[in-house]
Amino acid sequence: MSQQQYLTTLGKQAKAASFALANLSSQNKNALLRCISEQLTLNTEAILAANDQDVQAAKANGLTDAMIDRLLLDSERLAGIIADIENVINLADPVGSESASQLLDNGLRLTQRKVPLGVVGVIYEARPNVTVDIAVLALKTGNVVILRGGKETLTSNKVLSEVIRTALTLQGLPEDAVQLINSTDRDLVTGLLRLDQYVDMIIPRGGQTLQRLCAEKASIPVILGGIGICHLYLDKSADLSRSAEVIINAKVQRPTVCNALDTLLVHEAVAAEFLADLFTQMSALGVSFYTCEKTQQLFAASQFDIHPATDETFSTEWLSLTLGVKIVTDIDQAITHIRQHSSGHSEAILSDDINATCHFMNQVDSAAVYVNASTRFTDGSQFGLGAEVAVSTQKLHARGPMALDALTTYKWLATGDYTSRS
Amino acid sequence: MSQQQYLTTLGKQAKAASFALANLSSQNKNALLRCISEQLTLNTEAILAANDQDVQAAKANGLTDAMIDRLLLDSERLAGIIADIENVINLADPVGSESASQLLDNGLRLTQRKVPLGVVGVIYEARPNVTVDIAVLALKTGNVVILRGGKETLTSNKVLSEVIRTALTLQGLPEDAVQLINSTDRDLVTGLLRLDQYVDMIIPRGGQTLQRLCAEKASIPVILGGIGICHLYLDKSADLSRSAEVIINAKVQRPTVCNALDTLLVHEAVAAEFLADLFTQMSALGVSFYTCEKTQQLFAASQFDIHPATDETFSTEWLSLTLGVKIVTDIDQAITHIRQHSSGHSEAILSDDINATCHFMNQVDSAAVYVNASTRFTDGSQFGLGAEVAVSTQKLHARGPMALDALTTYKWLATGDYTSRS
Repeated sequence: MSQQQYLTTLGKQAKAASFALANLSSQNKNALLRCISEQLTLNTEAILAANDQDVQAAKANGLTDAMIDRLLLDSERLAGIIADIENVINLADPVGSESASQLLDNGLRLTQRKVPLGVVGVIYEARPNVTVDIAVLALKTGNVVILRGGKETLTSNKVLSEVIRTALTLQGLPEDAVQLINSTDRDLVTGLLRLDQYVDMIIPRGGQTLQRLCAEKASIPVILGGIGICHLYLDKSADLSRSAEVIINAKVQRPTVCNALDTLLVHEAVAAEFLADLFTQMSALGVSFYTCEKTQQLFAASQFDIHPATDETFSTEWLSLTLGVKIVTDIDQAITHIRQHSSGHSEAILSDDINATCHFMNQVDSAAVYVNASTRFTDGSQFGLGAEVAVSTQKLHARGPMALDALTTYKWLATGDYTSRS
Repeated sequence: MSQQQYLTTLGKQAKAASFALANLSSQNKNALLRCISEQLTLNTEAILAANDQDVQAAKANGLTDAMIDRLLLDSERLAGIIADIENVINLADPVGSESASQLLDNGLRLTQRKVPLGVVGVIYEARPNVTVDIAVLALKTGNVVILRGGKETLTSNKVLSEVIRTALTLQGLPEDAVQLINSTDRDLVTGLLRLDQYVDMIIPRGGQTLQRLCAEKASIPVILGGIGICHLYLDKSADLSRSAEVIINAKVQRPTVCNALDTLLVHEAVAAEFLADLFTQMSALGVSFYTCEKTQQLFAASQFDIHPATDETFSTEWLSLTLGVKIVTDIDQAITHIRQHSSGHSEAILSDDINATCHFMNQVDSAAVYVNASTRFTDGSQFGLGAEVAVSTQKLHARGPMALDALTTYKWLATGDYTSRS
């Protein structure tokens, strides 16, 4: 079977399964999720054994400890993944609700019913927890998935997806509601991106290279996201000592995630005093800096780890204990910098001036805009959504943290009495 | 200036203008629309003269009368376009409203504010009214547009867009909120589709070839739509004489539009009697038929204009007085046929059996699903939306008739008290 035939087969099977899933009641879907939870528990030993094969291969291939840690499952982590299923069971199911119902002048009774998207393709990296997380969120909303995980976790993903398929069968549902692409050939990714006859949406969960590949090659709607070049603007009116805490939190609390702070913009009226203190505190925490020329001049004689910033460094998502710093003459210069360099993820202003905060909220066009808060809050769980499918940085369909609702669409239903259009 | 430089310049200008438009009050936007209406009236003579050049060129190039009629503006048509602006002024402006506002457990006050998409690219064919319609709908929602019209109407579009730009200037707004691509080079279309740094959404308003080009080449989110392979299933329980009226309406009332009927599926229990009568009525109206083998056998001795249907003809959007006909053994065979051949636009069932109608509404996955009504109702105005930007046949962002709301997105705004994530 050629790759194209293989993908077409997956697509057809997914589409067929999607019709069986689309009209399940919430009770049926929750029973399925509980069955998945039970089957994962029953098969703990096999799952950990498969994961150990991936870990051994990763070690043999010289992967870094950090990468190995990302793909590692142990009984505690697996128990955590299983416990999360219970949380999803407890979430409200958006599917089936109707809105905008009305009697039209033409005599039709019209309603908008929320329905599953259908078939969702998910492309992700070497995190086996995503296999379970995304399958569970998709099934909760009556969707089916085609999964393409990272090559380093193929053995783990095969076992995990087979366990989920067993649960589907036990519940009398088509096992093809969850399918894993069982090869790590890269051509299968581009092939999946063009399976528009069968797949309704692609979610890439990975870095810039994967996001660009999807934007360039997909003929299916893609949810781009997860890339955060996040800014925080310190206004001259801000409470400086409380501000330092928030800035440190935004940069240091978990520097490897997309909502961590990348660039600090400081009003020139408070820059010299504030930055001296901030750099001292942050340097002690291991932070290094890429700064504008003004900042460099201010701290030319210092011991801080300061490098010259460029347009390129200001457009970098650091994902590390590195911070861009720029002194600005006013709030509009800060906003202009953000418009030029932001990825549209999360930006914040620290200020006690209501005019400045309103101006910032109005003028900054990102998924999440904060006043006097850390950028680290952009997260489905922090936003009270109960789940997170992805964090969208595009404007169509869903923006910012995406939860169950973003896995649905709607159809218009209209009922007449043998009604013709006049 | 190279084509790429030209497009980049358009993109930058559009993005800059988008920030000026995004926070206008509804009053300001309506004043702008009224000014456009006035300027179009004042410049009627110049607009009609430019259109006459397009018409003369079209005649010289041997375009069909139907095509020339599509691109023709006369004073009555232009007055109609101007009158439509008043309708848009009277629509509610969705921008600026907030929803889902709540106080989170982490202390943040969170809200979702509706905001314009930003920059919308629209690619359309030789209908100069689209230039005004789409600019007005975009401006009403605080968006800016980059327009690429059909080459046959370039002269008309240049004058129309200049008149709109004059109105923007008169209102103290950036004229680049409306920009027309001033050349008909096809490479500019593919270039526009990849301007993802500046353009937030592409709306192609045109046929299958344009839709596929956009799906294949765009790195910007695209709203595919406007292609309707529409089905109507006649159940054995239907009121047959009332059904014939609806079927004829769906096919004949305006055969050249996307919501016109393409394929009739008839339950075998009523096929012979019903079709004999229907074919007689429809033949008198000039309809020809592509039918399944059973139907052909039934009418082998008839004078009806009947051709053998194939998988390909059943996947054709006719846009003419042609109807596909297939006799099915039951409702599920009808649904299977629809799943295989539909473009996801509009489908209908005619039936007096509530079980059949519910089953059909649940199982058919198209933008609009009708019970006892013509497919011809899928339309922004018929659905009470007041406007129609496009009819989406994809599932992300908007489905079916898209109105003002589909030109918006939202941003999350969160306010804390120097709040860090714990």
